Amino acid sequence: MSLADDFFARHRSMLDDAVAATRSREYYSAFPESPSPRVYGESAAADGKAAFEALLGQEFPLRTPGAEGTVATEKSPYGLALEVRYPRVTPDGVPALVEAARAGLADWRDAGVEARVGIGLEVLHRLHQRVFELASAVMHTSGQAFVMAFQAGGAHALDRALEATAYAYAEMARVPATAIWEKPGRDAPVRMEKTFTVVPRGVALSIACNTFPTWNTWPGVFASLVTGNPVVVKPHPGAVLPLAITVQVCQEVLAEAGFDPNLVTLAAEDPADGIAAVLAVHPKVKLVDYTGSAAFGEWLEEHARQAVVFTEKAGVNTVVVDSTDSFKGMCFNLAFSLALYTGQMCTAPQNICVPADGIDTDEGHKSVDDVVAGLAKAFDKLVGDDARAVELLGGVVNPGVLERLSAVESAAGSVVIESREVSHPAYADAVVRTPTVAVVDASDSSTYENEWFGPVSYLIKTGSTQESIEVFRRTALERGAMTASVYSTDPSVVEAMRSAALDAGVALSENLTGQVFVNQSAAFSDFHGTGANPAANSTYTDGAYVASRFRFVQSRRHI
Amino acid sequence: MSLADDFFARHRSMLDDAVAATRSREYYSAFPESPSPRVYGESAAADGKAAFEALLGQEFPLRTPGAEGTVATEKSPYGLALEVRYPRVTPDGVPALVEAARAGLADWRDAGVEARVGIGLEVLHRLHQRVFELASAVMHTSGQAFVMAFQAGGAHALDRALEATAYAYAEMARVPATAIWEKPGRDAPVRMEKTFTVVPRGVALSIACNTFPTWNTWPGVFASLVTGNPVVVKPHPGAVLPLAITVQVCQEVLAEAGFDPNLVTLAAEDPADGIAAVLAVHPKVKLVDYTGSAAFGEWLEEHARQAVVFTEKAGVNTVVVDSTDSFKGMCFNLAFSLALYTGQMCTAPQNICVPADGIDTDEGHKSVDDVVAGLAKAFDKLVGDDARAVELLGGVVNPGVLERLSAVESAAGSVVIESREVSHPAYADAVVRTPTVAVVDASDSSTYENEWFGPVSYLIKTGSTQESIEVFRRTALERGAMTASVYSTDPSVVEAMRSAALDAGVALSENLTGQVFVNQSAAFSDFHGTGANPAANSTYTDGAYVASRFRFVQSRRHI
Repeated sequence: MSLADDFFARHRSMLDDAVAATRSREYYSAFPESPSPRVYGESAAADGKAAFEALLGQEFPLRTPGAEGTVATEKSPYGLALEVRYPRVTPDGVPALVEAARAGLADWRDAGVEARVGIGLEVLHRLHQRVFELASAVMHTSGQAFVMAFQAGGAHALDRALEATAYAYAEMARVPATAIWEKPGRDAPVRMEKTFTVVPRGVALSIACNTFPTWNTWPGVFASLVTGNPVVVKPHPGAVLPLAITVQVCQEVLAEAGFDPNLVTLAAEDPADGIAAVLAVHPKVKLVDYTGSAAFGEWLEEHARQAVVFTEKAGVNTVVVDSTDSFKGMCFNLAFSLALYTGQMCTAPQNICVPADGIDTDEGHKSVDDVVAGLAKAFDKLVGDDARAVELLGGVVNPGVLERLSAVESAAGSVVIESREVSHPAYADAVVRTPTVAVVDASDSSTYENEWFGPVSYLIKTGSTQESIEVFRRTALERGAMTASVYSTDPSVVEAMRSAALDAGVALSENLTGQVFVNQSAAFSDFHGTGANPAANSTYTDGAYVASRFRFVQSRRHI
Repeated sequence: MSLADDFFARHRSMLDDAVAATRSREYYSAFPESPSPRVYGESAAADGKAAFEALLGQEFPLRTPGAEGTVATEKSPYGLALEVRYPRVTPDGVPALVEAARAGLADWRDAGVEARVGIGLEVLHRLHQRVFELASAVMHTSGQAFVMAFQAGGAHALDRALEATAYAYAEMARVPATAIWEKPGRDAPVRMEKTFTVVPRGVALSIACNTFPTWNTWPGVFASLVTGNPVVVKPHPGAVLPLAITVQVCQEVLAEAGFDPNLVTLAAEDPADGIAAVLAVHPKVKLVDYTGSAAFGEWLEEHARQAVVFTEKAGVNTVVVDSTDSFKGMCFNLAFSLALYTGQMCTAPQNICVPADGIDTDEGHKSVDDVVAGLAKAFDKLVGDDARAVELLGGVVNPGVLERLSAVESAAGSVVIESREVSHPAYADAVVRTPTVAVVDASDSSTYENEWFGPVSYLIKTGSTQESIEVFRRTALERGAMTASVYSTDPSVVEAMRSAALDAGVALSENLTGQVFVNQSAAFSDFHGTGANPAANSTYTDGAYVASRFRFVQSRRHI
């Protein structure tokens, strides 16, 4: 048995559980989300931190074909100097990089489904062993607070990667490697043996984002890799380290098992190099995964014609507030969703539609001002104290977020909850802000229909809940949406919102007043994005996300 | 239970068998391929012929929204006057047609997976009841001989449609309609109910071809329809009737079950109307299925950016002849493949590579001339007698085929087997021709690397089998291929050809010397096309062919 097949056998039961979970959509997680020493051991946190710190100021030990010199582009939102140097790929180096990526393709294809999936699962296993180190890397690139970086950037990202691997495995295993075909005949049956081989599309390119370098990148990387495609990982210049570690682990496992380590490569760049656009249209690049701005996502869909392109771009997420049986719970839940990671999530709500004449609640009728006061009170609890606030808010990922924060003042509407600067007790130079909320009229659509990525939200006064639903439907159809949410005690309102969500192709959360937030999606159960509205052309994870990453090629012969 | 759900229950066991067959890839067929009275009853053939003849010269009883007036565009390759009139759609009518197609979309979506699949299966059942009528319609539009029209255009086409339906059903059924998600919590578990709804992409357009109006069109139509998409069927002007019958049956079943019959519509046109290009770029058209010329297929891939486009275009199919243990069997098998339906199959071989110094066979060494003589002898048996010949050859589908036949004379190489005109005993005006074979050198690639659709093939003299394999690999990678074939008694040659076929992404048949032909693919077991070379960007049928025709949209709530 080859080492790769041995990896497969070793991780087989986890894979089977994962495949089963994608079918039941029941709760499942393979990687514990609690960074507690009771789960990970007493020294895990300190060891991970030390491993992370040992990388700072160094040249990261990776070689990338076609690279020349190094580049150090990361800046921690907490002010920490990273100064990690990575091999730099410029447009001139792209041909050599793609050529090197293809060199191992035939061997990788011929290794077969189980060997490739075994390698993928072993990589996940080893990434998990480095999860504290990864959490620090995610924290100091994306700005996520540590626990969130550990969960969203570590455990949950591993679950999402496993989910994509499970889908890819199930899709490939749908067809046997060999079949005997026996057609009844007049005299004797006609018998043939048929061989079915999974053939990859070609080189896969993963273009990563700054805010979720692992969670949003691993699903595509693993789906492409285990289906036989060499993967070039193009990190965001602001968040290279988590993906450098990822590529390092991939290369280590590939080499151990006798495969070309260049089947997974890191293409770091200076932001001015613009290699994503060069890589994406290379004729041998046949798959592109992308998370980032709508503008470049649309450019990719338009120009990378030789490839299948999976994009997650941007959208405007809406909450329709009609009524609630837990006013406090609703305000808490909404405030948490807005504050979590400073609203720098593609799934964070932006627009909160409330009828201008107020809503019915368990605390009686509440005016729009009452709703604002309820939200303000919840923010006070959540982010009123600096030391607690930073654990929820994390840091501001880039200056664009600050620019939008200050632009709110001059936009339509009146600011009713102001953003404030927060001092981080551990990092003096950290840039931390609380959310701002402005009240606008339903007619101010030119303001609230734009995406204000970051801690900016609009409370939209509408004529009725019916109008609120129409605002949601129109915004989602035109601008896209990753999530939608409704609060109502009236089943007919919930039903109308469900119908609008189906029309607009948006996942809907109903009456979240507890510890589940609209921003969060659970691997194996919740789809992330739908592919059915302009915010994303694909989802984590369904059959469409994996099935076109490879083809079955058959041969047949009489026996 | 609704009528649609009742249909589902009624056809459930066939569906289950079909799904199982797609996974085992073992032999399966739901629709008997023999037109024998022992299978279909004594009167079936005569009844079907009478039903077909009753349609001739009439206005076909179908209404198409947006149509104005009628059009009669078909010409039987057997000389029969069809003169069937269909509602004519011009570019002006396209907006109204697409609007009408969308009108029933929400109801169709809300009906659910089983209701939609039930309708699809009932349509197949009723098409099967009209299979003799369909066979005549296919025969007198495509030119296929009657038995082939019955099989390829009837029974096998139904099997391919069932296969696509089974894949679509399995893909949708992968996710439950409702799931309970229970995450363990510190105090109590967090419990949520989640609803998953299959949401269609939008209007689907099926652009059909002249040669296989049902076999190549039904898979896309049924895959789109059962996944919730309204379907506009755009027939080739030369082969409308088989699809008019198809649309009629779809509308009949939809209306009976209480759905909008315009969920499936026929868009017939005058060839000069050019409505395919107008429909294909309509913003509400989200899926395009196409079979036809490479030029328009590439135009669709380039321009129908708002849609997912599935194309089967054209390719150049190669046979590598190295050696054989059955010279007669090989010559017979090859000659049959070339003659079947006058070579007017996208899967028919065109290029036969033979080493210039001949091949080893069970009858001793054979020179290139001997191979030509062997083929000529096989043609003599197969198409030497006019009455027998027409049953294999069928009719010439259009003048382009005749033009290519006469162009062979002035192309590179020397004609070694000449085409001849065949008189059809039943149809005096039928246009029937036997295949021609020309011998060329491997260096004459500018001739043999073009597609010579029809009864034209090239015997290419190569320096060695290794060169033959390189000719195959290069041609397939550059021009695309639907099939490939190898004859060799040397396992290392077969292995090298398999490897080249994987590199080029082409399905390979090995040493076919009996009653299985490289042109033919069996539903549920053989993939038709691979999607891995320029001849087609998709296959009948894999997960990728169905998975992106719909999206899952979820809602979730605490319980």
